[in-house]
Amino acid sequence: MQSYSSHIPQQRTLMGPGPSDVHPRVLNAMARSTVGHLDPDFIALMDQTKALLQYAFKTDNALTMPVSAPGSAGMEAAFVNLVEPGDTVIVCINGVFGTRMRENVVRSGANAVTVEDDWGKQTDLNKLEDALKANPTAKVVAFVHAETSTGVRNDAEKIAALARQYGCLTIMDAVTSLGGIDVAVDEWQIDATYSGSQKCLSCVPGISPVSFSDKAVEVIKSRKTPVQSWFLDMNLIVGYWGQGGKRAYHHTAPVNSIYALHESLIMLHEEGLENAWRRHARVHDKLVAGLEDMGLEMAVDKAYRLPQLNVVKIPEGVDDGHTRQRLLNDFNLEIGAGLGEFAGKRWRIGLMGAACTDKNVDYCLAALKSVLN
Amino acid sequence: MQSYSSHIPQQRTLMGPGPSDVHPRVLNAMARSTVGHLDPDFIALMDQTKALLQYAFKTDNALTMPVSAPGSAGMEAAFVNLVEPGDTVIVCINGVFGTRMRENVVRSGANAVTVEDDWGKQTDLNKLEDALKANPTAKVVAFVHAETSTGVRNDAEKIAALARQYGCLTIMDAVTSLGGIDVAVDEWQIDATYSGSQKCLSCVPGISPVSFSDKAVEVIKSRKTPVQSWFLDMNLIVGYWGQGGKRAYHHTAPVNSIYALHESLIMLHEEGLENAWRRHARVHDKLVAGLEDMGLEMAVDKAYRLPQLNVVKIPEGVDDGHTRQRLLNDFNLEIGAGLGEFAGKRWRIGLMGAACTDKNVDYCLAALKSVLN
Repeated sequence: MQSYSSHIPQQRTLMGPGPSDVHPRVLNAMARSTVGHLDPDFIALMDQTKALLQYAFKTDNALTMPVSAPGSAGMEAAFVNLVEPGDTVIVCINGVFGTRMRENVVRSGANAVTVEDDWGKQTDLNKLEDALKANPTAKVVAFVHAETSTGVRNDAEKIAALARQYGCLTIMDAVTSLGGIDVAVDEWQIDATYSGSQKCLSCVPGISPVSFSDKAVEVIKSRKTPVQSWFLDMNLIVGYWGQGGKRAYHHTAPVNSIYALHESLIMLHEEGLENAWRRHARVHDKLVAGLEDMGLEMAVDKAYRLPQLNVVKIPEGVDDGHTRQRLLNDFNLEIGAGLGEFAGKRWRIGLMGAACTDKNVDYCLAALKSVLN
Repeated sequence: MQSYSSHIPQQRTLMGPGPSDVHPRVLNAMARSTVGHLDPDFIALMDQTKALLQYAFKTDNALTMPVSAPGSAGMEAAFVNLVEPGDTVIVCINGVFGTRMRENVVRSGANAVTVEDDWGKQTDLNKLEDALKANPTAKVVAFVHAETSTGVRNDAEKIAALARQYGCLTIMDAVTSLGGIDVAVDEWQIDATYSGSQKCLSCVPGISPVSFSDKAVEVIKSRKTPVQSWFLDMNLIVGYWGQGGKRAYHHTAPVNSIYALHESLIMLHEEGLENAWRRHARVHDKLVAGLEDMGLEMAVDKAYRLPQLNVVKIPEGVDDGHTRQRLLNDFNLEIGAGLGEFAGKRWRIGLMGAACTDKNVDYCLAALKSVLN
């Protein structure tokens, strides 16, 4: 019979597209003793976690909570709750995650109208307005705030304003934006948004913070058809995560992962949102200066570049796989490969949350210099 | 501005329906440094985790892996992958989780035919055969092996044999059975099964081990309609969790929770499956003897009682909520409330995995004596 032993993972520096370096405080919190998912001790923690997520999303939305699964499930929660079969949804696509949104629309039995822009460019507001005019019965506009596959920041505020002007709800992917750049859910009047724990929150992967506006909640409550997913049905989940002392069992919450999320949100609160954004911007500038000094070229226009995800053109003649393997093996350093049409052509260097430090930039630049020379 | 501080949870003894006490080795494993979800270091761990799950499920099924979400999502994965709109599914219901299975069938657009038995009794095989005869086009028989809401073990082997005789696939809920009693996926020829991390595996909640037979995989591959859930689509997930060295990104795996699951499975492997079942049976006998000595009455017939979940009748005149609150506040001891029609009428005392010890039985009996006197 095969024998097995405990797994001691490598000690990496995580500068890819996520997971990012998890702070020891967060790892420590996660290892605390498990309590029941209906324990008053845990319910108090749930309430704090919701309040801290409201802070992070800059929202008063009552339905702000973590979905018990990764960001992909958070995305699915937004679509299967807001969209019904036969609805029309306009999806802005300029990378992998816009494409995934369209897939969610189709699997919800709805019609997807796409507004497509080149990877590495922003969603074109004129094209979006044309699509809104051409589809007067469209119910939702869906877009990605920070495209993890391309390093582009879309103009969330303007996209949401345009959608509202044409009477549409908005679904915003904030997986990579939350905690790294401004995400102003109430100010921008976003109706549904979701994020991931493992990006700029620097928590362990596996949890997806979501927030739904009161208008979105009304739409979910007055659906004609049941939500196709029992696990993600917000009408049921509010009985557990909702307001009030009495919580009804829906599913068993991932208690220890919520400990971790709570601790990571406390750390964000301690630093302050604005300070966190400033840190991401400053450290990003340092990384870009260092990369350009080495003759490397950034792939995204400065005007809408994400500080937390730096997409770099792989120089002619450099072997992508070999370079990343040497960084991993010789430096315990992970940077991200290109996704989709950028495979082999781009690197994605993350500066997310706890990984967004001067030390990491110095280390990454030194490692890259060593491997590329 | 409100201030927040790190949360130090209570140190409970978890003898409810799950989560159960998590062993310090498992908590420790979970707090190890996070690596990327495509890191070769993590892929090696994924392969070991799959092999250990095959051991736990007693199966050679290639598609045996953990779903990145709680058992409720594992249940949904089984249904949305195997069932298509218009299919007929026979669901055996004798508790909360059978009812939830029916809900999954309906939300998959399929027809649910139910075989209903009283809570606290086994599924009646004659009734099931009648339903199979009356529904010759039925595609799937779904049943709960260990009903967490009632403490009943259904006869999985006979249910599966009957389903097969009538040409049906089987979906088995093994959330509470896996690791506590025999779960013989290959011997019983189960086509799809799912479990939970937080029951007899004594891992943290949030992960759902699943296993699909080769026949089930063929059915999933040859569907006429796409799986309605993108997140749970096994056709996509196998690209990440499947065989071979190259893994395609689907979603970001909950890396640290997989560390925890791996460690809990190693502990099960070290003890040996049969020894774990014997421990559950022996400690259960001790608990029952102690409860009966106190004049308490077990709710389930000895012939099909679950050792890991002991359902006890609440004596006349005893206040359910007050009793459990005192156990929690004065003894840091969690036992489970009754669910559904058993609310206020039953307690559910779990003896699951690492919580299934002589020490816990002694403690629980002493606490109950103190509170009930």
